[in-house]
Amino acid sequence: MYSFRNDYSEGCLPEIMEAMVKTNLEQTVGYGMDYHCENAVALIRKAIGRPDADVHFLVGGTQANRTAITAFLRPHHAAIAADTGHIAVHETGAIEASGHKVLTAISPNGKLTTADVERIVELHPDEHMVKPKLVYISDSTEVGTIYTKKELEALRAVCDKLGLWLYLDGARLGSALTCKENDLTLEDLAKLTDAFYIGATKNGGIMGEAMVILNPQLKEDFRYHIKQNGGLLAKGRMLGIQFEELFTGDLFFKAAAHANAMAQKLQGCFDRCGIPMVAPSPTNQLFPILPNPLVEKLEKLYDFQVWAKEDDTHTSIRLVTSWATPEEQVDAFIKDFEALVK
Amino acid sequence: MYSFRNDYSEGCLPEIMEAMVKTNLEQTVGYGMDYHCENAVALIRKAIGRPDADVHFLVGGTQANRTAITAFLRPHHAAIAADTGHIAVHETGAIEASGHKVLTAISPNGKLTTADVERIVELHPDEHMVKPKLVYISDSTEVGTIYTKKELEALRAVCDKLGLWLYLDGARLGSALTCKENDLTLEDLAKLTDAFYIGATKNGGIMGEAMVILNPQLKEDFRYHIKQNGGLLAKGRMLGIQFEELFTGDLFFKAAAHANAMAQKLQGCFDRCGIPMVAPSPTNQLFPILPNPLVEKLEKLYDFQVWAKEDDTHTSIRLVTSWATPEEQVDAFIKDFEALVK
Amino acid sequence: MYSFRNDYSEGCLPEIMEAMVKTNLEQTVGYGMDYHCENAVALIRKAIGRPDADVHFLVGGTQANRTAITAFLRPHHAAIAADTGHIAVHETGAIEASGHKVLTAISPNGKLTTADVERIVELHPDEHMVKPKLVYISDSTEVGTIYTKKELEALRAVCDKLGLWLYLDGARLGSALTCKENDLTLEDLAKLTDAFYIGATKNGGIMGEAMVILNPQLKEDFRYHIKQNGGLLAKGRMLGIQFEELFTGDLFFKAAAHANAMAQKLQGCFDRCGIPMVAPSPTNQLFPILPNPLVEKLEKLYDFQVWAKEDDTHTSIRLVTSWATPEEQVDAFIKDFEALVK
Amino acid sequence: MYSFRNDYSEGCLPEIMEAMVKTNLEQTVGYGMDYHCENAVALIRKAIGRPDADVHFLVGGTQANRTAITAFLRPHHAAIAADTGHIAVHETGAIEASGHKVLTAISPNGKLTTADVERIVELHPDEHMVKPKLVYISDSTEVGTIYTKKELEALRAVCDKLGLWLYLDGARLGSALTCKENDLTLEDLAKLTDAFYIGATKNGGIMGEAMVILNPQLKEDFRYHIKQNGGLLAKGRMLGIQFEELFTGDLFFKAAAHANAMAQKLQGCFDRCGIPMVAPSPTNQLFPILPNPLVEKLEKLYDFQVWAKEDDTHTSIRLVTSWATPEEQVDAFIKDFEALVK
Repeated sequence: MYSFRNDYSEGCLPEIMEAMVKTNLEQTVGYGMDYHCENAVALIRKAIGRPDADVHFLVGGTQANRTAITAFLRPHHAAIAADTGHIAVHETGAIEASGHKVLTAISPNGKLTTADVERIVELHPDEHMVKPKLVYISDSTEVGTIYTKKELEALRAVCDKLGLWLYLDGARLGSALTCKENDLTLEDLAKLTDAFYIGATKNGGIMGEAMVILNPQLKEDFRYHIKQNGGLLAKGRMLGIQFEELFTGDLFFKAAAHANAMAQKLQGCFDRCGIPMVAPSPTNQLFPILPNPLVEKLEKLYDFQVWAKEDDTHTSIRLVTSWATPEEQVDAFIKDFEALVK
Repeated sequence: MYSFRNDYSEGCLPEIMEAMVKTNLEQTVGYGMDYHCENAVALIRKAIGRPDADVHFLVGGTQANRTAITAFLRPHHAAIAADTGHIAVHETGAIEASGHKVLTAISPNGKLTTADVERIVELHPDEHMVKPKLVYISDSTEVGTIYTKKELEALRAVCDKLGLWLYLDGARLGSALTCKENDLTLEDLAKLTDAFYIGATKNGGIMGEAMVILNPQLKEDFRYHIKQNGGLLAKGRMLGIQFEELFTGDLFFKAAAHANAMAQKLQGCFDRCGIPMVAPSPTNQLFPILPNPLVEKLEKLYDFQVWAKEDDTHTSIRLVTSWATPEEQVDAFIKDFEALVK
Repeated sequence: MYSFRNDYSEGCLPEIMEAMVKTNLEQTVGYGMDYHCENAVALIRKAIGRPDADVHFLVGGTQANRTAITAFLRPHHAAIAADTGHIAVHETGAIEASGHKVLTAISPNGKLTTADVERIVELHPDEHMVKPKLVYISDSTEVGTIYTKKELEALRAVCDKLGLWLYLDGARLGSALTCKENDLTLEDLAKLTDAFYIGATKNGGIMGEAMVILNPQLKEDFRYHIKQNGGLLAKGRMLGIQFEELFTGDLFFKAAAHANAMAQKLQGCFDRCGIPMVAPSPTNQLFPILPNPLVEKLEKLYDFQVWAKEDDTHTSIRLVTSWATPEEQVDAFIKDFEALVK
Repeated sequence: MYSFRNDYSEGCLPEIMEAMVKTNLEQTVGYGMDYHCENAVALIRKAIGRPDADVHFLVGGTQANRTAITAFLRPHHAAIAADTGHIAVHETGAIEASGHKVLTAISPNGKLTTADVERIVELHPDEHMVKPKLVYISDSTEVGTIYTKKELEALRAVCDKLGLWLYLDGARLGSALTCKENDLTLEDLAKLTDAFYIGATKNGGIMGEAMVILNPQLKEDFRYHIKQNGGLLAKGRMLGIQFEELFTGDLFFKAAAHANAMAQKLQGCFDRCGIPMVAPSPTNQLFPILPNPLVEKLEKLYDFQVWAKEDDTHTSIRLVTSWATPEEQVDAFIKDFEALVK
């Protein structure tokens, strides 16, 4: 049964696998100090237009977020996030486990507004409460939506005004940057955030996230934090090799664009069938709201995640496409779906 | 220049790479719930003779130690370790970062004795001090030595007497179990410890450690701790595939045995040349003590780690072999070394 | 200017001061092992009808909550609280600083319902999220309301069903237990909770909270946690002496009853004047909602806390009475208030 | 039976008790923002000659150390201490519980040398290990010895050279500063350390330590850390009142000088009797090494702490005097002791 469950169902892009095979018996030094990592850092610096950026490779998203937030904050500092944010819900309290409260704003569309940020800061005026210090956003968000350049600039401005760091979780950044509605570039992110990470796990890598630190105040001793949080791989080159491939040529963008194209083909089907969506997603995650019997029938044909009960007779599901999704599976789904809803 | 710097200089065993290539486009569920992981768990349970064991896959040694020790201890509990122990020195305070003191015994040979354990417990009698609760040992140790079955049984007995968990770090367990002096088996470890991990990173894997939990009191909710500590890989199957290969047939043992054989060939050379060693190592790490000028000459021919200043005229170095060390490089080293010491 | 700002504006009850003076030159052992502490423990055990209870003395509310919750939870466990709960808002992230997420339910009246608890547990089904494990309630709550016996029994039942600890913050327990609407006793609390604390700081003590642990699973090594969290006073007897006085005779209840009587006299005035309240409080904290100009005038006559902007023309204030509030000050306030609202 | 067990056996200096009685019914704001605290801060600033110092009041030594060290360090930083240091042994891992390793130097006399500091820093060169960042010393030390001005200047110099904070635990600072051998002043400490605390608990207060922060880099948001660590007393004035008394006139020094005089009278007796000491202590803690039978006889007459087994036939004991020790008890002890050793 074909699975639209997530964008990490398969292994890795063939180009990455090939590079791993080809370099397998090279001897390199450990812990990310090798020339593959160095080369990958150089390629990313070039792609973001910031030769001064610090770039580090971590293994996964929770680890990347935990390490960065721990490194950036002092003990009384808190992070601000949408209540759908990965750090708020799906990291088993990793941020709290490293000592920090996550202050949340209710956000059905997964995005944080400047009003959210200002209100939370106002509600925390003194030492009897935590001190908000870092704004966490993800792009694309956990519900598939994206930030516009204008929104990101506004968040930057409010962070500057209030003395906050702006940190962007890019687990699905490829998908955000290559979708039709997007008007942001890697260079923009490098200008507008204090730090962000570029996700490979959900965009064709085996595992790996590239943490990009722009603000010099946040750079010091970051490798200590990676090591302390269990993220410094002995064979760190494995991460470097993957990002070398992704950022040599446009593999990173091509892989993500394919995922988006596949999802948007599905979206076209939902639009034609008059299916409402949880949130309007231009990226590789779709959340159609379906009558319960339809969900049951669909589950017999495809694997996907049941998302949430929307009302007594409707349920939302999550469909995710990836670099690996064959167009013929999308076409088959559409054909099956249209047959079911007729 | 050939490197004897460590046992993680190369990629992975060809068998592992082949399995990764072969399975690359399979679709599986995430986070270690796939059939490769299930199969690897079954193979490890069989290899250790304990169908009841819980087995989890983690990415690296520091992460494995941090996750296990955090999961096993309450906030006032401390770990006991040799002062050479990885958790005591080389994990950037990861154990302390998760809240626990590491109490150390001075141990030039890297091993912990029952007398060490008893003395440390005696020195911590009440609530003004931490409560020792877990004994951490590594096999082979950080200086290449190994535990005998009798020593491990004695540690088990003292742990039972004093109400302590016995936890074994097996980052280089393959090397320990396949060396000539060894009289321990995986089955013994499963009987004598409360938990231990089997290291793949330093024995032919890309990355990966298999945590084996024997004591039912330590099993509950372990996956929560993996996730919270950033170790739950989205593409968890990558860990499962590696352990499938290592424990299908005897690849795990064969790889380690080769590393040992290469090291012991070097040891023969040092013995013939009358070179003293920091500690007698039957495994894949050797620590010869050399006159300073010899170290300098050797550094021009080979890459290795300078270990410690031993006295004003002598320095110890660390030479490490692995599954990937070609015998001809060992022979070349021996030839070069003998020429230099003549 | 007289202050209704809080119930810790003055020093301590004269009986307590006298006992401190009288015992000042006695020599005792330190850290709460003295006979005053032992006697106070015995008195509290008797008052709650539980000779088997463990009773410990801590210095303040944040410290008590932090120490208890850290001691009771494992790293992946979370607490459930009303969003008005002290641990959720006013402890500067102390619970998160010791590693635990606080999951909140929106609750304008400061109380947690069984439905809140059940919903939060349902939303946290697996290891990608924290595991709810402890229900935190306060009585009286942060907005002056109280729990009924029936409500507490229902919470106990839901905790039993879902495997949760029930923990009650009694910073203002005296006020709750002595107010007119109350139908709970100390014996009830000892039957229905796993642990609770009896606050002295806000009921006539200099400082001090008595932690009562009923559930044997939560008792082990609690003194270690007190010490580790900085709460084990060298001169611990100072805490024992205070609780000796409070629980010899009915001083604890008498002091709280006076505070309530003074507040309810104020409430009578607000009722007569048709002033709406934030929440109906039968205890020693009142939150009247006043027209903004009235607040300004009142601030010139009395000291109190401005609570929240209620709408564009109204503001709520907090008035708190205590064991030390003289009835003539209450009468004066009423007279002044009635003159202002005429 | 008279107790020489510690310097916190009694309540508080009569002057302090009197001030507490006198101010008992004053209304003040909470959490250390009252005028007693303000006045005490001003008095301490004057006493140390540093009007720019930040001064905060905390409840106890473990809490003071934990709060300061947590506030001053980032997650990968470690403290350096003598192995006898309070934070290394007697705080139930409070420093580790807040995430930081304590690196220790073996030090029978309780003092840390510049050589200790330099060696520890040298042994921690990279991100695989913690980064030493704070030097912790106590004066007087846990074994009664004191630092000279020259020693403190040397530690300051090495801290400057190596980029370390110098932090001094003054739990028994009064005793250090008033002993015969001392050549340090409060002004010196304010010049030479980055932060230190002045202990009242062991010098006549009920409880209370005054944290003095000199280095502007360490001052920011310190009250948040106090609150988060459970040290912000609702009735904070109780701490202010005590320090007002101690630093109005010379009560702080007088109380400590008495304790020293009493101890040194005992020392005279030990000298006359030829009793060896664990370390030469000019302060209020003495550690005579006695034949075992003598210890047993002495235990029948006086209460004190048995310190350590020194050899098969000798045991060290700890005798502590305080502001409250009556000279006649010292004389009685001397008489009894001399009778026993004859």
